[in-house]
Amino acid sequence: MIETPYLLFLGDAPDQLSAKVAQGIKDWRPENAVGQFRMVGCKADVGLKDMNLEEAKEAGAKTLVIGVANRGGHISQSWKQVLIEALEMGYDLASGLHNLLGDEGDLVAASQVNGRTLHDVRVPNVQYPIADGKKRTGKRVLAVGTDCSAGKMYTALALDEAMREKGMNSTFRATGQTGILITGSGVPLDAVIADFMAGAVEYLTPDNDADHWDIIEGQGSLFHVSYSGVTLALIHGGQPDALIICHEPTRKHMRGLPEYTPPTMEAVRDVALTLARVANPACQVVGISINTQHMSEDEANTYLAEVETRMGLPTVDPFRHGAARLADALADI
Amino acid sequence: MIETPYLLFLGDAPDQLSAKVAQGIKDWRPENAVGQFRMVGCKADVGLKDMNLEEAKEAGAKTLVIGVANRGGHISQSWKQVLIEALEMGYDLASGLHNLLGDEGDLVAASQVNGRTLHDVRVPNVQYPIADGKKRTGKRVLAVGTDCSAGKMYTALALDEAMREKGMNSTFRATGQTGILITGSGVPLDAVIADFMAGAVEYLTPDNDADHWDIIEGQGSLFHVSYSGVTLALIHGGQPDALIICHEPTRKHMRGLPEYTPPTMEAVRDVALTLARVANPACQVVGISINTQHMSEDEANTYLAEVETRMGLPTVDPFRHGAARLADALADI
Repeated sequence: MIETPYLLFLGDAPDQLSAKVAQGIKDWRPENAVGQFRMVGCKADVGLKDMNLEEAKEAGAKTLVIGVANRGGHISQSWKQVLIEALEMGYDLASGLHNLLGDEGDLVAASQVNGRTLHDVRVPNVQYPIADGKKRTGKRVLAVGTDCSAGKMYTALALDEAMREKGMNSTFRATGQTGILITGSGVPLDAVIADFMAGAVEYLTPDNDADHWDIIEGQGSLFHVSYSGVTLALIHGGQPDALIICHEPTRKHMRGLPEYTPPTMEAVRDVALTLARVANPACQVVGISINTQHMSEDEANTYLAEVETRMGLPTVDPFRHGAARLADALADI
Repeated sequence: MIETPYLLFLGDAPDQLSAKVAQGIKDWRPENAVGQFRMVGCKADVGLKDMNLEEAKEAGAKTLVIGVANRGGHISQSWKQVLIEALEMGYDLASGLHNLLGDEGDLVAASQVNGRTLHDVRVPNVQYPIADGKKRTGKRVLAVGTDCSAGKMYTALALDEAMREKGMNSTFRATGQTGILITGSGVPLDAVIADFMAGAVEYLTPDNDADHWDIIEGQGSLFHVSYSGVTLALIHGGQPDALIICHEPTRKHMRGLPEYTPPTMEAVRDVALTLARVANPACQVVGISINTQHMSEDEANTYLAEVETRMGLPTVDPFRHGAARLADALADI
C-alpha cells in the first residue's frame, strides 16, 4: 500500500538506536530505500547515501518514511519544514510514530493541497477481539528480550530468512511499526487499547498448518517497567511453543531508564517460561540471540561460547552468523 | 461531575459477576443509588429495590448508570429502548463500557433532543506519559489476584475504609470504571493505549507524603491470558511497597476462560514478587484477601485459618470481617 522506493528520514536523531525503523528497512528491504535524509545534528547513520529531497526524487523515491523515533513518539516541530516541503514536491509520507501525521493540521493541509497520502502505520485499523486463550493449530516462536531494542525484530527476521532457506514453513508476524513498514502488514501492538492487546496477538497468529511457524516479533521486556505489559500480552496472546531470548551484553542500564540494571538471561528465562506456560504448558526456551554489535569479532565469539555453555542452548548473533542454528532448534520441535 | 442519586441499570445481566459495577456502587456508596432496573432475563440482583424509570424518577434519581458489563463491553441493542426512554424522561446516562454511549448515534441524538448528558467514564481524558520508573515518595499497596473479578476492588475499598478508621493517611486509587463511578476520579486503565499503561499508573499515584498510602485498585491477573498485560503495567507503574493477594477459592476455571485452571496463591506470590521487585526491590506480600461469598461461615473460617497458616500471612475476607488486619500489616511497613 505504501509506494516504494522510500527516502528514509532520520531527522535530528539523538542516537543510532533511535533510527531503528530506518535501519530495519535498510537491513531487510534495501531495495526499497534510495537513500537517507539527515538534518543538522543528526547522530544516526544507517549507511545509505545522504540525499536531499531533490536528489532522492531524481533517484525515484516516492515516499518519505520517518525512520526515527523520539521518546514518546512525537513529530518534532523541527521536522515540519522538511515534511511539508516533501509533500509539496510530490512525496507521500509514512510514519510509525504515536503522534499521527493525520493529527497534524499543517501536514494534513499540505497533503490535501498537493494530493498526497499520509500513512500512519501505527494506527490499528481492526477492532481486535478480547483474547479467548483457546489453543490454536500450528506452531509459534516469540523473541523475548532482556531489554527494549535488544535485537528481537532483527532476530525474528533473520530466523524467518533462515527457515525459508531450509524449506521450512514460516511467516514473520510484525508487531511494531518497523516490521509493518518492512512487511506491509501486522499489528501495531503498542498502540492497541490495553484490554485488546492479547486478542490482537491471537488475531495476528491464527490457526495454521501443523508444520507452520509464526515468528512473532517481540516488544519491550518483562523487566522494562515502561512496556512490560505489552510483552506479557505477546507471551499470553501468542501462546508460543518456543521462546528465543535476546540480549545485548554491553548495555549498562535499561533503555531509557538510567536507574534500572538489565536482568540476567536466566532471570528472563525463568519468569518468561513461568508465564508462557500459563498459555502453553509445552513452551520451551530453544535458543539465545546475542546482539554483539558493540563487541569485536573475538570478544563476540568468546562471549557466545561462554553463554552457550552456561545456558545449555544454541547461542548465536544472527547479524554476524545468521540464524540457521535457531532454525535447526525449531525443526526439532 | 455525575449527578446523583443513580438508578442502577442491570439490563439482561447473564450472571451476578457481570453486575459488579452496580454491586460496587451499592456496597460503597449506597446513598447514591435509589434502586435497580432489571430487564426480563436478568440474572443479577444487587439487593436494591426494583424500580422502573418512573418510580426511580419519583424517588429522585438523576442518572441511569449502566451497572452491568457484557463480555467485550458492548452496549446491547436490547438495552437501547430503555436508555432512550430514560433520556426522554430527563435522566443523564453514565457508563464504563468499552463501547461508548457517545459513539451510539441514537443515544447521542436522544441526549441532544432532550438536553441530557452522556458520561463515558472509561474514556481517558488525559494524555498519559510513558513511565519513567523513577522512585516516588510515599507508599503504595496493590491488590493482585489469582483471577479477574476475585475481589481486588472490594479489598482495596475495604482497606481504605479500615485505614481511615485507624487514622492512617490513605487514598483509594481507582483503575476501573466501577471505582471511577464510585469515587469520581481515576484512570480507566483497560482503555489506555498499551505504551502508556504504566505511565498512567505513575500519573495516578504521584509523589506524596512519606506516611501516605496509595491503595491501588488491581486489574486482571498475571495468570489471566486476556488481561495479564494490564496487571503487569499496574505492578511496574505502581512500584508497590506492598502486595495483597486476592483469591476466590471456589472458582473452577479462570473467568471467561473455561480451559484455564486458576493458579495457586503461591504461584501468584512468587511471580508477582519477582516482577514487582524490578520496580521496587523492597516490595513484599503483606496479606491475603479471600472472597468467601460462596462458602458458609464455618467453611470460610476454616479456610481462612488454613490459608493463614500455609502462607504465613494475615488472611481475611474483608466483606465478612473488614480489612483491619490488612491495615495493621501496612502500618508495620
